[in-house]
Amino acid sequence: MPDTARATGAYAAAGVDIDAGERAVDLMRAAVGATYTPDVLGGVGAFGALYRSPGGGQVLVSSTDSVGSKVKLAIALDRHDSIGRDLVHHCIDDILALGARPLFFLDYLGIGKLQPETVATIVGGVAAACREHGVALIGGETAELPDLYARGDYDLAGFIVGTVAEGAIVDGGSIVEGDVVIGLPSDGLHTNGYTLARRVFADDDLRADVPELGGALGDELLRPHRCYLPVVAPLLESGLVKGMAHITGGGLPGNLPRTLPEGLGARLDPAAWDVPAIFRLIERRGGVPREEMYRAFNMGIGFTLICAPERAGEVLVAAPEARVIGRVAPAAGTARVTGLV
Amino acid sequence: MPDTARATGAYAAAGVDIDAGERAVDLMRAAVGATYTPDVLGGVGAFGALYRSPGGGQVLVSSTDSVGSKVKLAIALDRHDSIGRDLVHHCIDDILALGARPLFFLDYLGIGKLQPETVATIVGGVAAACREHGVALIGGETAELPDLYARGDYDLAGFIVGTVAEGAIVDGGSIVEGDVVIGLPSDGLHTNGYTLARRVFADDDLRADVPELGGALGDELLRPHRCYLPVVAPLLESGLVKGMAHITGGGLPGNLPRTLPEGLGARLDPAAWDVPAIFRLIERRGGVPREEMYRAFNMGIGFTLICAPERAGEVLVAAPEARVIGRVAPAAGTARVTGLV
Repeated sequence: MPDTARATGAYAAAGVDIDAGERAVDLMRAAVGATYTPDVLGGVGAFGALYRSPGGGQVLVSSTDSVGSKVKLAIALDRHDSIGRDLVHHCIDDILALGARPLFFLDYLGIGKLQPETVATIVGGVAAACREHGVALIGGETAELPDLYARGDYDLAGFIVGTVAEGAIVDGGSIVEGDVVIGLPSDGLHTNGYTLARRVFADDDLRADVPELGGALGDELLRPHRCYLPVVAPLLESGLVKGMAHITGGGLPGNLPRTLPEGLGARLDPAAWDVPAIFRLIERRGGVPREEMYRAFNMGIGFTLICAPERAGEVLVAAPEARVIGRVAPAAGTARVTGLV
Repeated sequence: MPDTARATGAYAAAGVDIDAGERAVDLMRAAVGATYTPDVLGGVGAFGALYRSPGGGQVLVSSTDSVGSKVKLAIALDRHDSIGRDLVHHCIDDILALGARPLFFLDYLGIGKLQPETVATIVGGVAAACREHGVALIGGETAELPDLYARGDYDLAGFIVGTVAEGAIVDGGSIVEGDVVIGLPSDGLHTNGYTLARRVFADDDLRADVPELGGALGDELLRPHRCYLPVVAPLLESGLVKGMAHITGGGLPGNLPRTLPEGLGARLDPAAWDVPAIFRLIERRGGVPREEMYRAFNMGIGFTLICAPERAGEVLVAAPEARVIGRVAPAAGTARVTGLV
């Protein structure tokens, strides 16, 4: 097992437990080591993590994100095995939107009380998701901060680095009026809108079954962020994809324009896809205006691709769950995404 | 000004203020843009940050860390301009210990209430330190999480990527018995030991002058982490440095062994350098055992270099503030650093 650049910021004083930190590192060592790829250089200590650089002509694409207040749900339900997967999938999807494939990942966990088993479960979820997608989890930091986080609380952030050939960056530059917008379905809320959703369900029993959800509310709300790498990566090789967007905070109106050239917008047809029951439930129970729903949530579309109309069929054959959800059109003022409400 | 891959996880609901997030991004845009180097590729949207890969034969060295509970001091004093510098310097020093020079940086800020000016001040400190050391601040995330952080609280983590030629990695492998350990002075506590230090001074007025410190207690405790890149980088070119350690949590006993081959330890001479007044004050006021002091704090040495005795003079000429603080010796059992207490 190679050394890992994984540290705990704990020390033996003032409520900070250095032994717990070391036990947590021991517990997660195997899961972390299993993510290592041949490009990871191990065995040189813990000050930094080493990964062989991709060669010239490549561009490193990086992103950082957290899972936001979805952690509060994991904490409320004491289920910490999938929150790391949320984080990794979110970060992979972010850099995928530029055409990059992921290389390596590092996590930061700030926590009120370092319980080794809980930390190992959280980071185990990070490691499992990394391993599935060929991403090396080469570093991480766990900081026990009893004066900043309540005892059972934690915050989880991740950093990803991927690579894309400079000529293969998907930047939306070739998008023209009439191109089609293809949506890929989400698996629930992913990692956005939780502060609002938790407010709406503040008085609900998260463990109770909700018939229209076909299961427990907590299960639905904890469903992991979907990773679009397996379905999107093969599509990138044919060059048909002109632009992509990862639908996170800000929803379709906030994220689709990021891939569109100036002067262009998208006219979407909300009848083209089914809005999952959880969003309808939040809207109804919270009395949330439809427009705000589309800003706070992905509403069933987690990732979008834009291509010429004559090539849309190739996407729909490769990804049968995909739907044509709209068309690129001249932008009308500041509202660059129209048709939703 | 190129686009930045800088986002706020805010949305317009449930106490999360999307406009405040956008104002914060506007306020920090110039400072962030000023860090960009020619290898940053801008203008392709906000899903990821792009940086030209350093090419074949190079190894990417990455690290993540936070400033720990030093943020609580910045919050208590309402002084947020230097905490970002702490973070950047800490991360630069981490990868420097392997011989790497920094390329780019991303920050994560989780905060209870997003005050645009405060966020811009915090990230402005990150940007200023990045710019000074030629590091591009290419991405970041600010997440407003009112249910996780108290209103004025925040946590700050950073992620750095640097590069070193594969043959130039400083891994300690050539260290032999008799080599000398050279210490570079720290600027106070840097970013470690704050949970303990804050406990010791819990009832003190941080703004009051303390004669033996030559100034206010809060000023001393907030002094930024020193960046060793300017003094160490020129020394790396001559190949004289065999091993390096960044003295963070765990102190000299916890960090020096990371660069030492199995079977070797270091015998240090604590009379070889002056322990700064702040550490003596913490020890006396808190009744902290000397051994714990050396584990929780850097005690005046923030970075160490190991080289052959006949080349120590070159280091001392290049860095007059450096001191020979010990010798490499066979390790006695599990205590690999001896002589301190």
